[in-house]
Amino acid sequence: MSADNLSSQSQQFPFAAERLSELIGKSGVDLLLASSRHNIRYLTGGYYYPLYMWDGHTNRTQHLSFLGIPRGALDDSFFVGRPGEKDVMEEADVWVRPCFEAARIGSLSTVERTVEVLKKRHLDSGRVAVELSTLPADAFNQLRRELPRVEFVEASRLLDPLRAVKSPKEIQVIRDGTDKLLQAVGHALRNGFHGETTLDVAEQVNVQCAARGLHFLYALVCAGPSYFRAPSRKRTWNAGRPLHIDSGSLVDGYVVEVCRMGFLGSPADLVDDLFHACRELEDAVLPEMRPGVEAKELHVRASRFLATHRFGEFGKFIAHGIGMVHHEDPVINPESSQLLEAGMVVSVEMEFRHPDAGHIKIEDMVVVTGQGGEVISPGSDSWSVAPL
Amino acid sequence: MSADNLSSQSQQFPFAAERLSELIGKSGVDLLLASSRHNIRYLTGGYYYPLYMWDGHTNRTQHLSFLGIPRGALDDSFFVGRPGEKDVMEEADVWVRPCFEAARIGSLSTVERTVEVLKKRHLDSGRVAVELSTLPADAFNQLRRELPRVEFVEASRLLDPLRAVKSPKEIQVIRDGTDKLLQAVGHALRNGFHGETTLDVAEQVNVQCAARGLHFLYALVCAGPSYFRAPSRKRTWNAGRPLHIDSGSLVDGYVVEVCRMGFLGSPADLVDDLFHACRELEDAVLPEMRPGVEAKELHVRASRFLATHRFGEFGKFIAHGIGMVHHEDPVINPESSQLLEAGMVVSVEMEFRHPDAGHIKIEDMVVVTGQGGEVISPGSDSWSVAPL
Repeated sequence: MSADNLSSQSQQFPFAAERLSELIGKSGVDLLLASSRHNIRYLTGGYYYPLYMWDGHTNRTQHLSFLGIPRGALDDSFFVGRPGEKDVMEEADVWVRPCFEAARIGSLSTVERTVEVLKKRHLDSGRVAVELSTLPADAFNQLRRELPRVEFVEASRLLDPLRAVKSPKEIQVIRDGTDKLLQAVGHALRNGFHGETTLDVAEQVNVQCAARGLHFLYALVCAGPSYFRAPSRKRTWNAGRPLHIDSGSLVDGYVVEVCRMGFLGSPADLVDDLFHACRELEDAVLPEMRPGVEAKELHVRASRFLATHRFGEFGKFIAHGIGMVHHEDPVINPESSQLLEAGMVVSVEMEFRHPDAGHIKIEDMVVVTGQGGEVISPGSDSWSVAPL
Repeated sequence: MSADNLSSQSQQFPFAAERLSELIGKSGVDLLLASSRHNIRYLTGGYYYPLYMWDGHTNRTQHLSFLGIPRGALDDSFFVGRPGEKDVMEEADVWVRPCFEAARIGSLSTVERTVEVLKKRHLDSGRVAVELSTLPADAFNQLRRELPRVEFVEASRLLDPLRAVKSPKEIQVIRDGTDKLLQAVGHALRNGFHGETTLDVAEQVNVQCAARGLHFLYALVCAGPSYFRAPSRKRTWNAGRPLHIDSGSLVDGYVVEVCRMGFLGSPADLVDDLFHACRELEDAVLPEMRPGVEAKELHVRASRFLATHRFGEFGKFIAHGIGMVHHEDPVINPESSQLLEAGMVVSVEMEFRHPDAGHIKIEDMVVVTGQGGEVISPGSDSWSVAPL
């Protein structure tokens, strides 16, 4: 493929087309059938049938669509959607054509139509990658029954590496979303009060996210000295105590996550020291977040830091790739030999659980760059203090 | 079972325990394994693991929990959740005990633990009902592999009829949620303006829903004279034109839906006549919405009305049960012999697509009562007029 083809392809497709072709080619897969909301959105540049964007359950079944990409033939890709979906895709200028429509709403009718399309296109044998971890069991059972000559394999080994490296445009979306989430979390922390339940704090974050155009996913709220984080109407934030909000929201299909600390009054020495230990732990790890570094090296750094720190026995480091899925590639754990690449986005979580203070935690969004990790969630260097 | 047992059961369980026992008994199922978010919430009285309430995808898998109910032994029910879930369920006072925890996060680890529990409890043969339309294919494949003596059947034939009749408490939740959704939709209609895109109208509904504590699901927005309803940045609401907002949101796990009409300026005679034809069609159907009536009778009434109406050729009637799922029991179509019962909640949709006016539509939420359908979404008798 010439350089000209490459650049024209990058314009035509909203994802790294060469990388996907390479991944499909290497895997020996004849056809990729993507179906999850996040991968349909990723491969179409944001499209999903609007009625089912946030909940696809209907009439004892659920909405299902397939985006099919044959090996070595991106231009022969096709879509199978629900009745009426063709017009909606055209309006949204989605690159993939044609769009075949199922006869009825629901996953089994989509499968019926897909089987017809595959037979007509002589794609009804060989190896087909489907998303087994999200495809409904009844739909997969029917696919298997109707396509006995097909060997079905898991598609995430293709799609997760594809999504792992973010384009500058994606990073900007994530950066803007993170900024809005920080505003929402900061608002809830600064307006906290003695006796507020952790459920009410979480609800505040929800409302503040929505007001900023974010689709709220969760807010775990932990009022010290307890370590309990599920929002509860039985637990309250009290004067002289720290509280963390660990929250995630969707922005244009991308998950953004942060954890920030608040205090009712003026933080005592112990909790303030633990708070700064989180930052020191982060500072120890960030320089390692460069292209070519094995993911496990982040844990080596963190462990080395904790081994000599006076609070080390209470500390923990967690990191994970983040994007259209809450935890995605790169996988970062003490065994992971995945190589970091420039443009990967990673959530880093630094935390200390101290019996006299509670659960002190910071989570930041970080982009892997040649100069080390660039934090794109500013403001983790100071408490959000709510006046008493 | 004595009357005393029945009443104590109704207090202990947040659903109609006798009805479920009867449904399980009749079906010949030995064990019900519920797993969908909506059915876990329904059977637990609102509980779901907070981190995954709105998105359970993580690390190439997804969150999965099972609530198991053996036939004739509600008190032997059990739950299989993720690591740490036991404490969260106890905090939420969920009735089901014990809660077994998977070793790791993700559906396959939950299946592993569930298989162990079933073997230990001698539930590893016979007929087990699972939710095939929502259970991930990889999880079901593993269940089937690990439990070769089990015959798996679809659980929705038990759970959908169970959810169909709503308690007074559920109806109150739905009523309050509907009221909030009407406020949100009304706000977006009254603040509409010439040249506003249908995508911006939909976004307004989203923000207004969130501000009222609703979890937004969708807003289809149709600017006449077009019939196109997917929110679009290319289509605008223009002076002298009708627009409908057909929107749904979740409130405490229940879907509420309405469609309301707006006009920029003063509605012309044709669109106003079509609007009132929607109301007349509704008035023709409501008296049939009584206990004991076959669902298809609603369509008989609607067809009779349309057959003689001057706009009949443009008209359409749709109705469906609604609750924790967007479209659920009772199924209402021209063939459905399902009997309506008091306390069922039904969405009724009356619409006319007229080439000179556009898509004129009203959708109301209705409760089946002995006196006919009671509309719990007031205000469909007048346009929301936005000043020019």
